[in-house]
Amino acid sequence: MFTTSPDALIERLLWRYAVKKFDPAKKIPEASWAALERAMVLAPSSYGLQPWRFVVVTTPAVRARLREASWGQPQITDASHLVVFARKVEVTVADVDAYVRRIAEVRAVPGQSLDEYRGMMTRSVGAPAGLPGGSMETWTRSQVYIALGVFLTSAAMLGIDACPMEGFVPAPYDEILGLRAQGFAAVVVATAGYRGADDALASMPKVRARHEDVVRRV
Amino acid sequence: MFTTSPDALIERLLWRYAVKKFDPAKKIPEASWAALERAMVLAPSSYGLQPWRFVVVTTPAVRARLREASWGQPQITDASHLVVFARKVEVTVADVDAYVRRIAEVRAVPGQSLDEYRGMMTRSVGAPAGLPGGSMETWTRSQVYIALGVFLTSAAMLGIDACPMEGFVPAPYDEILGLRAQGFAAVVVATAGYRGADDALASMPKVRARHEDVVRRV
Repeated sequence: MFTTSPDALIERLLWRYAVKKFDPAKKIPEASWAALERAMVLAPSSYGLQPWRFVVVTTPAVRARLREASWGQPQITDASHLVVFARKVEVTVADVDAYVRRIAEVRAVPGQSLDEYRGMMTRSVGAPAGLPGGSMETWTRSQVYIALGVFLTSAAMLGIDACPMEGFVPAPYDEILGLRAQGFAAVVVATAGYRGADDALASMPKVRARHEDVVRRV
Repeated sequence: MFTTSPDALIERLLWRYAVKKFDPAKKIPEASWAALERAMVLAPSSYGLQPWRFVVVTTPAVRARLREASWGQPQITDASHLVVFARKVEVTVADVDAYVRRIAEVRAVPGQSLDEYRGMMTRSVGAPAGLPGGSMETWTRSQVYIALGVFLTSAAMLGIDACPMEGFVPAPYDEILGLRAQGFAAVVVATAGYRGADDALASMPKVRARHEDVVRRV
């Protein structure tokens, strides 16, 4: 059990902020990046269906094009790493079946033992208006944001800076990364690396609403 | 710097799972719960607007009613703690202004220095069709899922079990917790505590898609 103390957790979450200027010379060590990729893969999702894909963009020319589709924001090219979090556009019965086969394989159980679970999932994806949020897109989009939250918290725990970014134009992202052709669509971006010494935001106090305005007890 | 090692992070994320049966006798220590509440408050959100509220339900009678609105799932009453993650139904210019005042206060800067930032936010919330996801609801809902991801990762780091739950009927939740009257709506639930010795799922291998099917490099 490698647990963290409550104080250490809060120290990490206070340390993190949305980096505006990364140090372009500092790269995330390989072992740390591998853990962050794994953290995304291990993120929870509704039913465990993982209706997502995480595209790690390393090719500088591709990152330059994505920056153009991101209002020129420098993090897109200057951060050590860039991940595009994409949702699966349609979650189908075939996806459910593939997932059920995967459960049966990993847990070494007969597929039939999962019939009830399969039924729940197929009913859910077969009636998207009944999904939380009322549509397939809203539902899968929400799941992707869980993975984003896991990624950002994991990075902070490792002492790696990050910046979540919604400020980009999805259509060119989908085009540049060939996502639509594979049944995916860009939802949100995270850049990761190390804050630049010249990022004025690094030293500013974090702004949050008062605890009692956000957390209520019933 | 209380950073975690890559191995420790992964050990924690492998340890966590969506608990089906909590040990109803085991309660989360006060300091740990305080840290988890603070982790939610510190979660990042678009522009830092925090369009959310976190309702910690402690009253047993209220939890019993919520369980009825959650297909009877036992985690709702048996977990040490229950949080309902709610979205703000409408984010208005008044919310933006309150946030700008809060930034000015916390950072001790003149409000006018934030005019450009304020303009970006008011344009965003004033044209919800242009928000990521195309509507106010989808956008605020997504932000709430970031907080959920932060909460679940934070709990795992502290060695506290949790179960994220979408399986509930939102309307009675809003009614029971008086959320709508305050301009909020229930989005997703997290229960937290300690896994029961009789939770068969605890010992089952975690099922995830193959790394190479989920993480792509470009």
